[in-house]
Amino acid sequence: MSGLIDFRSDNVATVSPDIMRAIAAANDGTAAAYGDDGISRELNRRLSALFETEVSVFPVATGTAANALGLAALARPWGGIYCHEQAHIHTAEGGATEAYTHGTKLIPLPGINYRLAPETLRTALARVDHGSRNRPQPDAVSITQASEWGTVYRLDEIAAIGDIARNNKIRFHMDGARFANALARLGCTPADMTWRRGVDILSFGATKNGAMSADAIVLFDQTLVEPLSYRLRAAGQTWSKMRFAAAQLMAYVENDLYVHLAGTSNALATRLAQGLNQIAGVSLAAPVEANLLFVNLPQPAIKALAAAGVLFRQRDETIIRLVTRFDGTEAEVDQLLDRVRGVMRGVHA
Amino acid sequence: MSGLIDFRSDNVATVSPDIMRAIAAANDGTAAAYGDDGISRELNRRLSALFETEVSVFPVATGTAANALGLAALARPWGGIYCHEQAHIHTAEGGATEAYTHGTKLIPLPGINYRLAPETLRTALARVDHGSRNRPQPDAVSITQASEWGTVYRLDEIAAIGDIARNNKIRFHMDGARFANALARLGCTPADMTWRRGVDILSFGATKNGAMSADAIVLFDQTLVEPLSYRLRAAGQTWSKMRFAAAQLMAYVENDLYVHLAGTSNALATRLAQGLNQIAGVSLAAPVEANLLFVNLPQPAIKALAAAGVLFRQRDETIIRLVTRFDGTEAEVDQLLDRVRGVMRGVHA
Amino acid sequence: MSGLIDFRSDNVATVSPDIMRAIAAANDGTAAAYGDDGISRELNRRLSALFETEVSVFPVATGTAANALGLAALARPWGGIYCHEQAHIHTAEGGATEAYTHGTKLIPLPGINYRLAPETLRTALARVDHGSRNRPQPDAVSITQASEWGTVYRLDEIAAIGDIARNNKIRFHMDGARFANALARLGCTPADMTWRRGVDILSFGATKNGAMSADAIVLFDQTLVEPLSYRLRAAGQTWSKMRFAAAQLMAYVENDLYVHLAGTSNALATRLAQGLNQIAGVSLAAPVEANLLFVNLPQPAIKALAAAGVLFRQRDETIIRLVTRFDGTEAEVDQLLDRVRGVMRGVHA
Amino acid sequence: MSGLIDFRSDNVATVSPDIMRAIAAANDGTAAAYGDDGISRELNRRLSALFETEVSVFPVATGTAANALGLAALARPWGGIYCHEQAHIHTAEGGATEAYTHGTKLIPLPGINYRLAPETLRTALARVDHGSRNRPQPDAVSITQASEWGTVYRLDEIAAIGDIARNNKIRFHMDGARFANALARLGCTPADMTWRRGVDILSFGATKNGAMSADAIVLFDQTLVEPLSYRLRAAGQTWSKMRFAAAQLMAYVENDLYVHLAGTSNALATRLAQGLNQIAGVSLAAPVEANLLFVNLPQPAIKALAAAGVLFRQRDETIIRLVTRFDGTEAEVDQLLDRVRGVMRGVHA
Repeated sequence: MSGLIDFRSDNVATVSPDIMRAIAAANDGTAAAYGDDGISRELNRRLSALFETEVSVFPVATGTAANALGLAALARPWGGIYCHEQAHIHTAEGGATEAYTHGTKLIPLPGINYRLAPETLRTALARVDHGSRNRPQPDAVSITQASEWGTVYRLDEIAAIGDIARNNKIRFHMDGARFANALARLGCTPADMTWRRGVDILSFGATKNGAMSADAIVLFDQTLVEPLSYRLRAAGQTWSKMRFAAAQLMAYVENDLYVHLAGTSNALATRLAQGLNQIAGVSLAAPVEANLLFVNLPQPAIKALAAAGVLFRQRDETIIRLVTRFDGTEAEVDQLLDRVRGVMRGVHA
Repeated sequence: MSGLIDFRSDNVATVSPDIMRAIAAANDGTAAAYGDDGISRELNRRLSALFETEVSVFPVATGTAANALGLAALARPWGGIYCHEQAHIHTAEGGATEAYTHGTKLIPLPGINYRLAPETLRTALARVDHGSRNRPQPDAVSITQASEWGTVYRLDEIAAIGDIARNNKIRFHMDGARFANALARLGCTPADMTWRRGVDILSFGATKNGAMSADAIVLFDQTLVEPLSYRLRAAGQTWSKMRFAAAQLMAYVENDLYVHLAGTSNALATRLAQGLNQIAGVSLAAPVEANLLFVNLPQPAIKALAAAGVLFRQRDETIIRLVTRFDGTEAEVDQLLDRVRGVMRGVHA
Repeated sequence: MSGLIDFRSDNVATVSPDIMRAIAAANDGTAAAYGDDGISRELNRRLSALFETEVSVFPVATGTAANALGLAALARPWGGIYCHEQAHIHTAEGGATEAYTHGTKLIPLPGINYRLAPETLRTALARVDHGSRNRPQPDAVSITQASEWGTVYRLDEIAAIGDIARNNKIRFHMDGARFANALARLGCTPADMTWRRGVDILSFGATKNGAMSADAIVLFDQTLVEPLSYRLRAAGQTWSKMRFAAAQLMAYVENDLYVHLAGTSNALATRLAQGLNQIAGVSLAAPVEANLLFVNLPQPAIKALAAAGVLFRQRDETIIRLVTRFDGTEAEVDQLLDRVRGVMRGVHA
Repeated sequence: MSGLIDFRSDNVATVSPDIMRAIAAANDGTAAAYGDDGISRELNRRLSALFETEVSVFPVATGTAANALGLAALARPWGGIYCHEQAHIHTAEGGATEAYTHGTKLIPLPGINYRLAPETLRTALARVDHGSRNRPQPDAVSITQASEWGTVYRLDEIAAIGDIARNNKIRFHMDGARFANALARLGCTPADMTWRRGVDILSFGATKNGAMSADAIVLFDQTLVEPLSYRLRAAGQTWSKMRFAAAQLMAYVENDLYVHLAGTSNALATRLAQGLNQIAGVSLAAPVEANLLFVNLPQPAIKALAAAGVLFRQRDETIIRLVTRFDGTEAEVDQLLDRVRGVMRGVHA
């Protein structure tokens, strides 16, 4: 057992060679700045085709920018945004949404396996004190697909949330930091997982799945184009050489590359889950539906695993997070399983 | 006379091949996210060596982000930031500084050739109503080097502004969107143009001069590290795959690449200025000290020039802006001069 | 049974005659604006004597302004403020704290009877990911004394929270919208209930207890004077004719008027609680320690009580809130008890 | 020559006895909070009658709150608000508008005697780069009536600005801190000076002209009611005992009290101006059209006048500001003239 193997996160991954080639190819002569170039313009058409409806696409530097600025474009300072209590926007983005919205309240709701049940949202909205100047007025619901716990909303769940949003005249935001992993899992089209189920605005994650430095905000609701574009500019999120971000995103969806990359990491996660399930004393803390695994391990095993050269994130005293990547290999997964078996033998010895 | 020639801006340029190679080389296995990787850490050491003092470096997506977040890290909501009335932060960044600072006032001052004279700043600061809750309290002065008019502050001017800042206990910010062009012009060291003259914080521009998607905030004042790093995170400006931005900046300064690239565009600007000066009816509206040229032309000549396939920005009815680039050529400049001569003949005919 | 009797809130009360006289007396010739007048200056001295330490006092228009601007003066945009999950600042002030702080996160914690247990705070702070740019960094704890549920923190509880705050280098804020009611209940000095137990900043409520249009921010921590005073000005909370607010607050504390007024409303609450406890089918949902009563009633009784001319707030389907006031009377309380008995007879008939 | 005489400002004035009586009369039993009481509701009807159109009225604590929150209700974060370069909102309100709008830019324009000429506004709007994400997009124009220099816009000037606003689809805001002084000067109706000339939103000043602690935002454009009311709540500007503010404003307009009070201070200003004009070596720096006088005096005379017990504000080295008040007297004015004559004799001796 030797050598580091890395299951820390999908954001430690490399850039997909296809995307690297697209970046290099975009470096061809001068081009208009700030998104007026040919590639950036083509990106709108390309994603409109992909999503089977007219969309407006805004590349941004990070998923946090995508979420916070997308939400800021639709929220009122006195508004409320409903989300799961473990949503990344609420727990792990440095207060970006609060900072960009200037007062909009994130309203955390409980939910099994980090998924917001439609009924929970419906109940929360039914209790709203509409028109009260004292309390946040509903503006949006945000779900993370796939969730931060590696679980995936089913299409009927998304549709149910979309219905509630429409009935309550609020917007529906999807944090798709791992959009492709969810899509690969469900085997549906991008349209089926978004606007056909009521989604108005999507953070279309790419960086965790093979891109270099670009995620995108995809608007199905064109009334958000104006507020969003001004907010992006004032946020310093409008690249002058936008074509290099657009090129990444073009390559990302070309021939469904993004689905294939996510399929790889999902398959590695499944392989890893199956292997872990066969090790005595090890159990999965959450369903494995994308590329994230949360694993119950005895504390000594966790220490031993780190000592054995496995890189991972510790979640709490007895749970670790393992993440598979598009650029990972079955050999790595098998090596990890070997090391887990090794440390568990040590624990039980 | 045929074919488009492009003098619109330096942000329409390509990426330097050296920087493209560095990006490709950085794509080598997994690496810690958010700047904990080896290249990002090395960047701090590398720029500390370059600047001959300990600096902290934060790559960001755009020059606007560099300026606005750098200023937000030092400004109080009731503060005032003195700048030239034509400074980019005041006139052309979509209100980014106001948005990120939540109320800090930009205080525009006049100045010949877009340069803020030390005396003008001194007079403005002498008039401050210190302690008044009604009026902005001085927090910083910001200068653009090279300026938006293509002019360059001399070292003694920077020093004088630095002295005034120190005497007034305010910070000194330099918007270095075209830092390298100014440096190449002055032929001094980066240290000489910055902290040795009192600069506390620098927007270290790279994108206009050969980088792809990264500028950097360089802190000489380490007390700004904490507020800046939190603000960057909440702004969605902290890339997960930070190494690709760091790699750009590493290559940018390697063997003084940035000075050489800027030297090329400066030399092309000088060649163009000399050529224009010899054409009857054409005159320069501003000194040419970097890579920007502002040129007085008769209105019919401006129209004719556009019709002749020259891409440029019109400033007002009789002034156009021409920008030379690191990836431009003498042939292009000469071609442009030919076309200008052509349209001027037409005008006078 | 006839005539409306009003138990809606203490903010429907009149102004104490003593305070009205003080307002009238302040209307005597010209006086410097913005707090430079004699009465406003005296206010600082008067409250310093009352609190037995040097304090700085800032009258503001509302309790919401006191809380939100006080907290904004101490919070960083990336900070977190710990409070009870039912704290007024979190649930009922229209997002004022979020709006004024530009991103500071309120971190709600559970607690019996709307009181934050020291142990709960300690545990929450022990889990903080210090230095993480992703998560709020602790800035303050805020408690409401008396609480929104009519309960009162004991001195040892306040001291324990103060110790935790000091040990964690965060500030301690007290929302004293009903400060006097708590003080009257505990029978201690203002100093004992605040800075001697670690409180750094107090929202000193007056409007609910006999003032007309002024609450005050009382600073025990003088380093907050500068940021607070600038923020108040930019918030439009600095009255030009400040003396009329100062005069209200001077009269409010003269001869312990505020304690006497609160003593009256507390005594009425006790009388009401005792009466309610003797009515079959009626029970108190919370301990009655100040002037708020939360009462369990059958739904039909709630409707009947409203029909019988009693003004109150309904909390949920079977709980109503009754509030006694400094200007209430025993006769009113007895009349209310009569009506409750009447409706309960009707329910059981 | 003895005794202080006070010409510092109209905000050092007393409260009109009529308004004091109304406050006392409002202290009659319990009343609903937050503006749901009878007096507050009547206020809307009363001002609708006064303005001869339906208006919505929001009492606030200060003129700064009225301006900044009124403008925040209509402005976009990427918007621009045109105003005179000496407008109070731009120079003397502690950045309140910038703080409440989160980035909206105040765009200062020059103008003789602190009045914004319609032509200047038209020219500025004609130069706007519409749709540019880099530059502020026009949202509003704001004028101060009477101006900070004591001058008054004529009705045709207001109408011309109103036309420009309508043609450019921006809103028209009037800072009426001294609304009554302008009205008394012009001798027109409130409707004539506001919505009939295109004004959409008015800061209706009362405190400088006899009220105690309340100004008001008057909306002619009802679409602003919702955003404004939420913003007021989050700003801590919604008094619980709103009736005491409403009562002040009701009394303020009853029998045109406000016009009579302003008429008094205007007349005193005229008397003072006439007297000053007859003193050799003294001249008026601005037309006297309301209750503000700006007076050129030799520096030694300024010092002597202060030594002689006259309270005033020094504007610059040789200009002082004198303000007359509704509660001032002709005797005081004559006494002031005596002292000015005295010091001028001293200067020339």
